[in-house]
Amino acid sequence: MKLIRYGSFGKEKTGVIINDVKYDTSAFGQDYNEAFFENNGLEKLAAFIAINEGTLPLIDASERLGSPVARPSKIVCIGLNYAKHAKETNAPIPVEPIIFFKSTTALVGPNDDITIPKNSVKTDWEVELAFVIGKKASYVSEEEALDYVAGYCLHNDVSEREFQLERGGTWDKGKGCDTFAPIGPWLATADEITDVNNLRLWLKVNDKMMQDGNTDDLIFGIPKLVSYISQFMTLLPGDIISTGTPQGVGLGFKPPIYLKDGDVVELGIDGLGSSKQKVKNYSK
Amino acid sequence: MKLIRYGSFGKEKTGVIINDVKYDTSAFGQDYNEAFFENNGLEKLAAFIAINEGTLPLIDASERLGSPVARPSKIVCIGLNYAKHAKETNAPIPVEPIIFFKSTTALVGPNDDITIPKNSVKTDWEVELAFVIGKKASYVSEEEALDYVAGYCLHNDVSEREFQLERGGTWDKGKGCDTFAPIGPWLATADEITDVNNLRLWLKVNDKMMQDGNTDDLIFGIPKLVSYISQFMTLLPGDIISTGTPQGVGLGFKPPIYLKDGDVVELGIDGLGSSKQKVKNYSK
Repeated sequence: MKLIRYGSFGKEKTGVIINDVKYDTSAFGQDYNEAFFENNGLEKLAAFIAINEGTLPLIDASERLGSPVARPSKIVCIGLNYAKHAKETNAPIPVEPIIFFKSTTALVGPNDDITIPKNSVKTDWEVELAFVIGKKASYVSEEEALDYVAGYCLHNDVSEREFQLERGGTWDKGKGCDTFAPIGPWLATADEITDVNNLRLWLKVNDKMMQDGNTDDLIFGIPKLVSYISQFMTLLPGDIISTGTPQGVGLGFKPPIYLKDGDVVELGIDGLGSSKQKVKNYSK
Repeated sequence: MKLIRYGSFGKEKTGVIINDVKYDTSAFGQDYNEAFFENNGLEKLAAFIAINEGTLPLIDASERLGSPVARPSKIVCIGLNYAKHAKETNAPIPVEPIIFFKSTTALVGPNDDITIPKNSVKTDWEVELAFVIGKKASYVSEEEALDYVAGYCLHNDVSEREFQLERGGTWDKGKGCDTFAPIGPWLATADEITDVNNLRLWLKVNDKMMQDGNTDDLIFGIPKLVSYISQFMTLLPGDIISTGTPQGVGLGFKPPIYLKDGDVVELGIDGLGSSKQKVKNYSK
């Protein structure tokens, strides 16, 4: 299945995409949130769709898309998980996964604007493969890890490099600004993706290709990440894990290139669709 | 007011403490969560109590206390915010606040057990003054910052030093293990605390005083912290901010002292009560 959420920010309704057509599933009666994943929602939704497929209302093409998953308990991200990206940022290849958090208030829809924060001069892009946790995960082994993955989605891990790297302390300061987590267009359930280790992912700024990688370059794959993170914290159903970005971020250019008001960012991953964000300066 | 939550983990009911007596406020009909703070819950609760004070049910003394605030959107912590503590950890005095996150799955009641994670050898204690956000905060000035603080509570920012400092990446790995955020016993509304900049805070391990500090030693005070964090992310009603720990953590001893199965940790802050946790090894 391909799950979507649509409508105005904070009041999204649920839907699905079947054969490229968007259908409303509000009658299912449950948002795609922690309780949904925890209570076997994917299976119940599939049954609901099987029964109602002929009569589901169409979603108008003009509708805004929201994040395909409601605000989770946490967004955990992995740093420097592609070797060439580590190199472009002058960082050593990590010996074990680097973990950081994005404030969940950063979550927006796939085509919402990116807001450059006040006092920011180094807002950057990062196309990433994200996955969503399907059931509570604590001390999970790599062998059983994929049982805990509900599905996959596209994520732009927008990052403010000065806040992240030059303001003291951890990376968290530069990762959680409002609008810094455009996610979607859809959540593809795990069965939709034949080989998650061979997906092209790309990102353009103003139509120029900046990132063009493949998940076969991931240093730490998804089973390792689920298992690893679950040694340090409990992952809850609906939690979003973002797996890192390939080379081609703005920070890696000489001189670096950062986003400015009016820029347009487009990104995509095989099987997970594409998204497009306009960049705007903060204004109250 | 002093707000409490009590009952079994994940199913807590609400209450208040009046003249050292605990009363149930379930009839108020709203947990102490994001929606509560967002919708002027403190004022409504005060009105409810004023009307019902004579008839509120007593809470049995045997009841477990939970966190006085329901699981928030985030727990943001400040690192090295007492000068002597920075020194004991061999870290420089921060030029600006250090921010990290605790996974909200770490949240437990004030007297729940602390679980030493699997493969942990460096689980440590940190008594901290925490505060709770009362309304959505984005780009708040220091002058108006205290308007965004609903109240204060006691927090043991339990930390695994190897996970935090020796496993690559940010501190987040060592801060969010299950049971690593015992909070409470109560949330004191801001009006209950006469001078938040002059509160003694202390922590004992097995009856031995290990930390004995005062919030007058804070490098960055609460107005600065609210304002500062809100430049990097939006704080939501009910979010918990923990302000850092004074000297006397296990890491600072030569050789370091870490928690072990059977230890008892007690901590307290003037006006915010005390809490007591037994330390146990992880067992499935």
